[in-house]
Parts: sequence; C-alpha cells; structure tokens
Amino acid sequence: MPDTAEYLAKNIKETVLVSLKTGSWVRGILQSFDRHLNLVLDNAEELVLPKSGGGLEDRRIVRLGKRVLIRGDVVVAISTPDRGE
Amino acid sequence: MPDTAEYLAKNIKETVLVSLKTGSWVRGILQSFDRHLNLVLDNAEELVLPKSGGGLEDRRIVRLGKRVLIRGDVVVAISTPDRGE
Amino acid sequence: MPDTAEYLAKNIKETVLVSLKTGSWVRGILQSFDRHLNLVLDNAEELVLPKSGGGLEDRRIVRLGKRVLIRGDVVVAISTPDRGE
Amino acid sequence: MPDTAEYLAKNIKETVLVSLKTGSWVRGILQSFDRHLNLVLDNAEELVLPKSGGGLEDRRIVRLGKRVLIRGDVVVAISTPDRGE
Amino acid sequence: MPDTAEYLAKNIKETVLVSLKTGSWVRGILQSFDRHLNLVLDNAEELVLPKSGGGLEDRRIVRLGKRVLIRGDVVVAISTPDRGE
Amino acid sequence: MPDTAEYLAKNIKETVLVSLKTGSWVRGILQSFDRHLNLVLDNAEELVLPKSGGGLEDRRIVRLGKRVLIRGDVVVAISTPDRGE
Amino acid sequence: MPDTAEYLAKNIKETVLVSLKTGSWVRGILQSFDRHLNLVLDNAEELVLPKSGGGLEDRRIVRLGKRVLIRGDVVVAISTPDRGE
Repeated sequence: MPDTAEYLAKNIKETVLVSLKTGSWVRGILQSFDRHLNLVLDNAEELVLPKSGGGLEDRRIVRLGKRVLIRGDVVVAISTPDRGE
Repeated sequence: MPDTAEYLAKNIKETVLVSLKTGSWVRGILQSFDRHLNLVLDNAEELVLPKSGGGLEDRRIVRLGKRVLIRGDVVVAISTPDRGE
Repeated sequence: MPDTAEYLAKNIKETVLVSLKTGSWVRGILQSFDRHLNLVLDNAEELVLPKSGGGLEDRRIVRLGKRVLIRGDVVVAISTPDRGE
Repeated sequence: MPDTAEYLAKNIKETVLVSLKTGSWVRGILQSFDRHLNLVLDNAEELVLPKSGGGLEDRRIVRLGKRVLIRGDVVVAISTPDRGE
Repeated sequence: MPDTAEYLAKNIKETVLVSLKTGSWVRGILQSFDRHLNLVLDNAEELVLPKSGGGLEDRRIVRLGKRVLIRGDVVVAISTPDRGE
Repeated sequence: MPDTAEYLAKNIKETVLVSLKTGSWVRGILQSFDRHLNLVLDNAEELVLPKSGGGLEDRRIVRLGKRVLIRGDVVVAISTPDRGE
Repeated sequence: MPDTAEYLAKNIKETVLVSLKTGSWVRGILQSFDRHLNLVLDNAEELVLPKSGGGLEDRRIVRLGKRVLIRGDVVVAISTPDRGE
C-alpha cells in the first residue's frame, strides 16, 4: 500500500493540480513537499473560476511567479497524472 | 471492535464515497490512507450537487484525474460498501 | 465517574444519533470509535432538516451506505439511549 | 486557585448550561468530563433561540435523549450553579 | 518581562472583560485560568451589543450565572484594570 | 537571521499595531509575548474601521483599558517601527 | 529535493509575495521565518484588491510599516522570484 509520502515522491518534477480551501486551484510542477503537505511548485498558475458557476474549462489563468510555496494547511486535494505504478 | 485503521484497511482497492468540508463528494477506489486520514484515490470523480437543493441523484460528475490525494483535514465522512465482516 | 471512552464503549452495537458541524445529523449503529472520536457506524442514515425551520420530525432521510466512518473532528455531539448504568 | 478540572469536578451530578460554537445552548446534568472538555450530560435538552432576537426566556426546548456526549472542541462556555466553595 | 501566566495571575480576584470569537463580551471576576487560557469567572455577565452598530455603552446585559467556565479556544482578548505593577 | 522571538523581543516597550482575524486592529505598547504569540499590551486601543470601505485614516478609536492580553491564535500580523537593527 | 525550509532560506533578503487567508496579499523583503511559517518582512505593503472583481493590476497599496511579523497560521502561499537554483 503506497502511503501519502510515497505517492507524492513519485510525482516530483511532474505537473500537479492542487485544490485549496480558499476555493482556488493551483497548477504547477511539484518540486518538494514535507509532512505538513507544504508544497513547492514551479511555473505555478492559479485557475480562477467564474463565480457564476461554470467548470474548469471556463477558468481564467493567473501566473503566480516562477516558484511558489503553498501551505499544507490550506490544501484540500492534490491531483496527479498516473504513470502506471 | 474494529478500529478506524482496521476499517479502512478492509476497504483498500474498493470504491469509497468521501464527503468533504467544502460540501463536495468524491468517489474513487481507495489506494491508501494514513493516520491523518489523508486518502489516495484512483479514478476519482467529484459529485457536484445543484445549489438549489436536490439529492445525490441530481449530481453532475467531474473527473479528478487518474489519482488524487485528499487531505484528511477536510474529510467529513467515508462511506464504504460492506462485505460481511 | 464514567469518562468519554467508557461512555462510548457502553454504546457499541447500539443506535446513536450524531450531530455534525456541517449541520447534519447522522443516525446509525456504533461499531467502533477511537480517541479522536472517529466513529464507524453501520446502517447509517443522514437526517436532512428543512432549511425553513422545523424540527427533527420534519426530516428527510438519506441512506449513507452499509458502513460509514465519521471523522471525529466534525462531531458536535453523540446522543445515545440510556440502559440504566 | 481552583483550576479548570477542579471546577468541573465540583459540578459532577449538577445541572450545567453549555454554550456551543454552533450557537446552541444545551442544559443537562454533568456526568463526566475529560481534559479536552468532552462532556457527558444526562437528561440533556437543547435550548433553541428564535432567530429574530429575543433572549433565553423565548427559547424552545428540544430533548436530546437520556444521555449525550458533547465534544469539547465545540464548547464556548459552561455555566454552573455556585454552592459556596 | 511579565509573561502571559504572570499577567493573569496578577488579576486573580479582579474584574476582567473577555472578548470572544463569537462576537460576545463577558465580564466577571477572574477565579482561575490554565495554560489553554480556559477561564473561570464569578458573577459573569454577557454584554450583548446591538447588531446595528453602536458601542459598549449601548449594550444589554445578560447574567450568566454565579460561576462560568470559558474555553480558552474562543478567547480573543482579556482586558484588565492596571494596578501599578 | 533574526527569528520571530528575537524580533518581538526588540520591540518590548515599543508601540505595535496588531491585526486580528476578527478584522480589528489593536495598537498598544508591547509588554510581553510568549511562543504562542499571546501578547500583553499597555494603553491599547482598537481601531474600528467603517464597514463601507475607507482606510486606517477613517478609523474610530475605542480604549481597551490600561492592559490587555491578546490571544496569539487570533493574530494575523504585528507591525512595528524599525529602529535600525 | 529542496524542502520547505531550504526553499525559504534561499529567499532571505529577497522580495516575496504572501497570500493570506484573510484574502489580502502582502509584499515585502523576507527577513526571517520559522518552522510555523511565521514571517518577518521589511518594507511590507498590503495589496488591497477591489471587491468588484479585477486582478492584481487593479490593487491599491497600503504601507504596513518598516517591519511586519506575519503569523504562519494565516499564510496561504508564498511566491518568490526564482534565481536559477
């Protein structure tokens, strides 16, 4: 059974999609994580959803800078591509 | 008396329905969990309920990617099928 | 003086009514608990109260599956029948 | 200086009035407590206040069952009668 | 430098004004405290402020009973008279 | 690299401006702090901002008493004058 | 894999953009941090976004004083320039 850390370790240098308690989504390349789920992402961008409903396809994209640290405390979920483990 | 970990361990590789503090429901195949109730799910999809009332049967389904990590801190409840333990 | 754990232990296999921070009520047969007040319930159902006031008698019932784990962090209160201890 | 535990211990078997973060008030006979301020109350009833202002005297009373466990995390205050300590 | 505990210890048996996260103010005579800032107050009364603005001078006073325990977790601030330390 | 405690220690007996999670600002002379960021302030006053926008310059000032303890848990930020360290 | 602390250490004396749970953004020169993500910033300014939508380019800037301590508990994300590590 792969645990949380093992799962994240497999996705280092991969693009992840992070859902936050603030309602935002952030997408970027996972550089590191720690046991609090603090995340360091590269080339991160925030996906701003229209207030009046709509889905991810209606998003507006905001660049967050070359590198961003996200505090684990605000993370809801981390979605990653699967590479056949 | 089966405790929390024992209960989740029995549902590895099974479909679970997870209710989140954000009001969302996520359904997927449980791959792993840890003591914080961080969950790794495969083939996860979010069940989006209409704001104007209605029940689970009126949901819209959003694919969350092949594999998703849900932070235990946002989990309200985990519902699982029973297999006669 | 019966403490928290002793009190819950006495109600294993009994029907309990759990009030959640989300405003929901869940009723089911208590199968297990741990020190975080994580609860495993069987035959659980959610009691959905009408938004426009009213009491428990006006509830709508939603089946939650054969077995459900409720995270202790969202529990407000656990009400149990008394059996003369 | 009587500390928190000593204060609650003196009120075992006495009626207490508990104010919750949910905005509810619960009244019952204190049976036990622990260091998280988890409380076990007997003959508990919830005092439902009218939304449109008014005071405790305008309350509606809802029976909570013979015995209830209240999670310390949701407690705001516990009010007790004084017996001249 | 007087620390938190030393500061509260100096105000035992004195009137304090406690501001809570619920938006309420409670005034009473400090009987005890612990490291979580749980407080025991005597002759406590809640100062109910009018919703439509106004200041402490427009308050309505509600008696909370002879003795009340306030959970430290809901405390915002504790204001005390100064006695020239 | 000056750490959090070192930074606050340098501002003992100085005026600080504290922003709270409740949306309030409190200004006073820092008397002490502990590792939870509990703060003791002298001559504290709350800066009440008008609801209808406006900035710090439109504030109304409310005296909080000679000495106030602010619980670290509600602190957002502490702003201090710089004295060329 | 650079961890959280290593990442922040590389940005000491650099300008960072901090997003807070209150919805505010603060920009300043990072002077120190600790393991709770408490941050000390110099020349900090708050970027006030218009309520009626709009982006960072529509912000109003409020000076926060020469030096400010931000409590880690309210931090959502820390964005930093990249310097080719």
